[in-house]
Amino acid sequence: MKFINGGVCAAKGFSANGIHCGIRKNRTKKDLSLIFSSKIANVAAVYTTNLVKGAPLVVTKNHIENGKAQAIICNSGNANTCNANGVEIAEKTCELLAKELKIDSKDVVVASTGVIGQEMSLEPFEKGMNALVSGLGDNSNAAEEGIMTTDTIAKSVAVAFEIDGIECKIGGIAKGSGMIHPDMATMLVFITTDCAISNEMLSKALKSDIQSTFNMVSVDGDTSTNDMVVVLANGEAKNAEITSEGKAFDIFMKALNSVTIALCKMIAGDGEGATKLIECNVCGAKNEDIAKKVAKSVICSSLVKSAMFGADANWGRVLCAIGYSKCDVDVSKIDVEFVASTGKILVCKNGSGVEFSEELAKQILLEKEVNIDINLNDGNSQATAWGCDLTYDYVKINGDYRT
Amino acid sequence: MKFINGGVCAAKGFSANGIHCGIRKNRTKKDLSLIFSSKIANVAAVYTTNLVKGAPLVVTKNHIENGKAQAIICNSGNANTCNANGVEIAEKTCELLAKELKIDSKDVVVASTGVIGQEMSLEPFEKGMNALVSGLGDNSNAAEEGIMTTDTIAKSVAVAFEIDGIECKIGGIAKGSGMIHPDMATMLVFITTDCAISNEMLSKALKSDIQSTFNMVSVDGDTSTNDMVVVLANGEAKNAEITSEGKAFDIFMKALNSVTIALCKMIAGDGEGATKLIECNVCGAKNEDIAKKVAKSVICSSLVKSAMFGADANWGRVLCAIGYSKCDVDVSKIDVEFVASTGKILVCKNGSGVEFSEELAKQILLEKEVNIDINLNDGNSQATAWGCDLTYDYVKINGDYRT
Repeated sequence: MKFINGGVCAAKGFSANGIHCGIRKNRTKKDLSLIFSSKIANVAAVYTTNLVKGAPLVVTKNHIENGKAQAIICNSGNANTCNANGVEIAEKTCELLAKELKIDSKDVVVASTGVIGQEMSLEPFEKGMNALVSGLGDNSNAAEEGIMTTDTIAKSVAVAFEIDGIECKIGGIAKGSGMIHPDMATMLVFITTDCAISNEMLSKALKSDIQSTFNMVSVDGDTSTNDMVVVLANGEAKNAEITSEGKAFDIFMKALNSVTIALCKMIAGDGEGATKLIECNVCGAKNEDIAKKVAKSVICSSLVKSAMFGADANWGRVLCAIGYSKCDVDVSKIDVEFVASTGKILVCKNGSGVEFSEELAKQILLEKEVNIDINLNDGNSQATAWGCDLTYDYVKINGDYRT
Repeated sequence: MKFINGGVCAAKGFSANGIHCGIRKNRTKKDLSLIFSSKIANVAAVYTTNLVKGAPLVVTKNHIENGKAQAIICNSGNANTCNANGVEIAEKTCELLAKELKIDSKDVVVASTGVIGQEMSLEPFEKGMNALVSGLGDNSNAAEEGIMTTDTIAKSVAVAFEIDGIECKIGGIAKGSGMIHPDMATMLVFITTDCAISNEMLSKALKSDIQSTFNMVSVDGDTSTNDMVVVLANGEAKNAEITSEGKAFDIFMKALNSVTIALCKMIAGDGEGATKLIECNVCGAKNEDIAKKVAKSVICSSLVKSAMFGADANWGRVLCAIGYSKCDVDVSKIDVEFVASTGKILVCKNGSGVEFSEELAKQILLEKEVNIDINLNDGNSQATAWGCDLTYDYVKINGDYRT
C-alpha cells in the first residue's frame, strides 16, 4: 500500500469540481462541490446522532436506501439546518444536478455545511449548476476547497493497494474545523474507491472503521448537526467483488483505515484556532471501551487543551480528566508521558508526580504534534484519540462566526 | 427572609480568619482560612465524584463520619492531590489546628485548592497556625480571600429567616472559577448556620439542594478533584431542633437555597476569564431530567459560550446543543429567546428561525447577565443552569496557570 495524489479523483472513474456559485458573499471562496462516478456506485454512509439534523441528511438517507449513488453535491456557507423549507431546497438541488448530469436525482447524495438557521435560496444552485458540471475533471483540489468553512487547509488523501494482483485506489476529502465531536458519525468526509465491494461489506467496513477513527476526534465537544461520511465504490478496478470477510476485505479495511486516520489527523490538527495536533494514546486498559473513554476525556478537557497551547506540562489536569471519565481505573497505577518527534518525558508515575526537567517538557510541548501517552497498567487494551489545543483564535473565530 | 452581611460569621457562634502562611510565594495573597464554631456542630457534606480525589477529601470524609465537626481549615495554592504523602499532610494539618484550638482533630474538616500534583510541605501550616487561630473573629472576608485561586471576586452571602418566631441565620462562602463542572458535588463551599437541625435532616437538605444548584453550574466542563460543600449547624439560634420534614424544614430549605443559588451565580459569573453570567432556563420539558440535561448542554457548549462572548445571536448553536443532549425532545416545537434586564428577543420559533432585529439582539447580549430561555413546548417541567462565556482570558489564564 502506498500514499498517492489525487484525493477523490485518484480512484478510476471518479471526477470532481468546485466553484463559487454565490451562497457565500465572498467571491474568492468556493462554495459548491461535486464528486461524480462515471458508473453508478455502491454507497455506504453514517450520519450525526444529533437530534437536530441538517435537511440534506434527511434527503440523502432517503436517496441511498437502495445502496446506490452516482454523485455527491455539497455546499458550504449555509448548513441548511433549522430551515422550514430545508428538505425542499435539498431535493431541488439534487434535481437540478441530476438534470444536468442526466442521471436519476435519487442517485445524488446531498450535503451542506455552514451557519445553522439561515434561510437558503435555490438561486445560486440554479445559476452555478451548469458550470459545476461542465468543469468536472481531475479537480479534487477544487472540490476540497468548495466544502471548507473555517478550515485553514484543504484535507485530502489517497492510497493505492493491491487485491489479488489488481491495483485498487481509495481516496477521500474532508472538511471540519469547529463543532467537531463526532458521535456515531463525523464531520463531512467523502471517500471514493474503484475497488469492487458489495454494499453490505462496504457498509460493514465503514461502520467498523469510524469507531476508532472519526469517532475519536474532538475539537470542541460540539457534535455537529450536519455530519456525514459517505463512501462510493464503483468497482472500476475490476477486482473480484468483495462479498465476505477474508483476506481481500482485510486489505480493503487497512487501506480505508489509512485514509480515515490521515483525515482524522488533518481535521484535529486544523481544529478552529489550533496551533497543534494532540494525540492521546491510552494503553494498559482493562478493555477497549475504557481506553477510548479515557483518551477522549483527556483530549476534550478545556484545561488540558489550554495547557497544551501554553506548552505547560500541567499533567495534574490529565489525571483530573481521567478521573472524571467515569471509567473503572486504578489511579495509583497511572503513568503519563509527553511525547513529540524530538523526545519524550515522564511526568507522572503511579498516579503521583515525578521530578522532571521543565525545560525539556516545554521543548516537547512546543512541537506541532504532541502525544499524551497514558499507561493505565491495568490490562492490555488500547485506544487513540485526536484533538487540538484551545487558543485565543478559537474564541475569536467563534465570537463572531456569522459576521 | 432577608439577605444580610457577615458571610460565614453571620450565624451565631461562628468566627473565621484568613492569613498568608507561605504556601503561595506571593505574600499579598492569603492562602489559609479557618472557620470555627464555638460549639460542636452537626455537619453534612458532599464531595466530587472525580475518581482522582484530593487527599483532604479522604481525611474529611473519615473525620465527619460521626456527623460532628467544629472547624474547617482550607488552604489555597496547592490542591494536595496526586501527592504520595497527601493524606499524612492533611491529617497533620488537622492535628496542628486541633492543638491550637484545644479540640479533637477528628472534629476538623480539611480542604485544599490549587495546583494538582505539586509536593506540599507542612512547614507553612506550622508557622501560620498560631496567627490563624489568634486572629479568629468576625472575619468572613479574610476567610473568603484565603480560599481564592483564579477567582476575581470574593464570594459570600447570608440570609436571616424565622422558625417559630426565632431568628436563624445561614451564610456561606465559596471559591471556584475554573475546573468547574460539578457532578454530585461542587466547587468549595462552606456554609454555616445557627439553626438547630438534626444530622439526618441537614444531610437531606444539602443533598436535595445541590441537585438544582451547584450541580447545575459549569464553567469549563472539567469536574474538579477537590470539590466539596460542607454545612455546619451549631444550633445556637436555640430553635426547636428540626428533626423531620414539615414547615420548619421547608423554611430552612428555602433559606439554604437562597444562599446556594446566590453562590452559584457568583461562581458562574466569575468563571475564569468570563465577561458575563449566562443563565439557561428551560421550561415545557416532559420531565425534570430532560430540562436539566438540555440546560446543561447549552451552557456547556464552547460554541454557544464563544457566541455569547462575541454578543452574536447565533441561536443555531443553541439548537445544536439541545440536539446532542441525548434527550427526547421534539425539535420542531422548540422556541428560543435571549433575555436581559433591558429587554428580550425571540430568535427561534418551532425549531426554525424568525426574523429579528440583530441590533436589538446585540444590545441584549452585551449585558453582564444574559438568559437563554428555551421552551420545549412538550410538558410542564423546568430547570435552570448557570455558566459563563468563553473568552481569550480563559485561554490566557489556563495556558500558564502553574507559572
